Amino acid sequence: MDEKIYIFGHKAPDTDSICSSLVMEKFEQNLGLNVEAKRLGKVNKETEYVLNYLGIEAPALLEKVEEGQKVILVDHNEFDQSVEGIENANIETVIDHHRIANFQTKTPLYYRAEPVGCTSTILYKKFKEEGMQIEKKEATLMLSAIVSDTLLLKSPTTTEDDKKALTELAKIAEIDLNEYGIEMLKAGTNLDDFSEEELINLDAKRSEKNGKKFVIAQVNTVSIPDVLKRKEKIETAMRKDIEANDIKVFIFAITDILNSNTQIIVLGEETAVAEKGFAKNLEDNMMFLEGVVSRKKQILPVIDQNL
Amino acid sequence: MDEKIYIFGHKAPDTDSICSSLVMEKFEQNLGLNVEAKRLGKVNKETEYVLNYLGIEAPALLEKVEEGQKVILVDHNEFDQSVEGIENANIETVIDHHRIANFQTKTPLYYRAEPVGCTSTILYKKFKEEGMQIEKKEATLMLSAIVSDTLLLKSPTTTEDDKKALTELAKIAEIDLNEYGIEMLKAGTNLDDFSEEELINLDAKRSEKNGKKFVIAQVNTVSIPDVLKRKEKIETAMRKDIEANDIKVFIFAITDILNSNTQIIVLGEETAVAEKGFAKNLEDNMMFLEGVVSRKKQILPVIDQNL
Repeated sequence: MDEKIYIFGHKAPDTDSICSSLVMEKFEQNLGLNVEAKRLGKVNKETEYVLNYLGIEAPALLEKVEEGQKVILVDHNEFDQSVEGIENANIETVIDHHRIANFQTKTPLYYRAEPVGCTSTILYKKFKEEGMQIEKKEATLMLSAIVSDTLLLKSPTTTEDDKKALTELAKIAEIDLNEYGIEMLKAGTNLDDFSEEELINLDAKRSEKNGKKFVIAQVNTVSIPDVLKRKEKIETAMRKDIEANDIKVFIFAITDILNSNTQIIVLGEETAVAEKGFAKNLEDNMMFLEGVVSRKKQILPVIDQNL
Repeated sequence: MDEKIYIFGHKAPDTDSICSSLVMEKFEQNLGLNVEAKRLGKVNKETEYVLNYLGIEAPALLEKVEEGQKVILVDHNEFDQSVEGIENANIETVIDHHRIANFQTKTPLYYRAEPVGCTSTILYKKFKEEGMQIEKKEATLMLSAIVSDTLLLKSPTTTEDDKKALTELAKIAEIDLNEYGIEMLKAGTNLDDFSEEELINLDAKRSEKNGKKFVIAQVNTVSIPDVLKRKEKIETAMRKDIEANDIKVFIFAITDILNSNTQIIVLGEETAVAEKGFAKNLEDNMMFLEGVVSRKKQILPVIDQNL
């Protein structure tokens, strides 16, 4: 067991999970703690763009933790989204902006969740509260996480706190938000290099309701038809996952980040949950959801309430 | 369903649960929210002393909540310690200093837990962070909660934050901590008016591990032998509760708050969990635990790890 406290975001890490881990590492180091940022999976294209911009390395990969390992979770709390062995780790701190579920500890801890658009927005507030100076590097990391999670403040998850943080961070980072933000988001939508299997796991949230496992995977794009060219192969990959992991419903959401719409492909025994939840019929396993961009706010609750 | 957001602590409320509800009410009202403090059970003698000192009423009793009722939880999170109907309430905020377990939400929320001795210590920090002035009344309420939970800073759950908050609050409240604190604690140890049934429910935390229900009830006293005069009747009440609620192990902890020791009475199918956990044999269903005063830090983890 490592003496260091590990800091990490969720599996299939997105930009918030990676950037917030790095920023939290800095925050805790400033307070004198022995911590190290880690990651639970491959860095995605969007995050790569951020790390390249800053000229820094991604955190090291963490495969599992031993019993009693001290950890700090950012951007998630549900055990099935976390590292192998999390049940017996010593969770000291959680900084998150999701619902709480499938989570428990044996002892008291520091837990800070706020219903804001991005974990980095909470980290920004923590720096402020501590009177801690924010360096250009951390400003860029937090800014990138907020742009990613809120789709440049266009997602319905966006709050006043996110806006305020983003504006302030752009000043510190000396970054033109529209230019940098759109380049970063576009970098994240290049899906050509991924196999269909990788595609459905790029940003997949796996959860459970009443003993029924479900998956909501999401990819961002600037062209939904472009992604749908691979529909047949994507469905094959989804069916394989459904069978291997006993998934009752698998939702693959293709989100057009420029026009703020989402096309979902739904497979599994319980596809009716999507039809009921969105009051719309599936055609050819698909449904078009106008104005939907947020999995957390616009898809997950609908599934969770109807499954 | 009430438009107001209800604020309440745990069942069988202690001084922290009542006082923190009232203080949180004030905090949220200062921010312009439509809130009302409630209580989930009878006010205990110690809390009564505090309310009488301030000349204020206890919050109104809340028996259950309807689906979708907006609520703020203080001093607890586990659903089995909360109000009837909590599973379908809309939990907006939690302020707590306990472990997290048997808790979940459908949507993101504001959750603030810190591993400090008392919920009111966190509330004190929230007032400070908001730059909100603390009035004498709220100072007295928070101070009383901290004295109660930390046994005048003698409990091992006490942190530097609790000490700092208590010192500052005593100044605002213009209260001599030793005089007021000891009187308040003594008021809480007068157990004569309670039936044995009431005694085992005065401050009872009900929980579950691996499907096994257990109870850890605690009373404070200045004389353990005084309480043990009623041992036989207390055991009868415990056995009745065990049978009625399918409890696997019931621990009744009698804590000497002046000398910081605890005598526990243990009944149920799984009394071995206490013997194993504390590496000591039960004699006449009892065990003396030197230096033990904190259920949360010194009793609950031992039971939870071994059940």
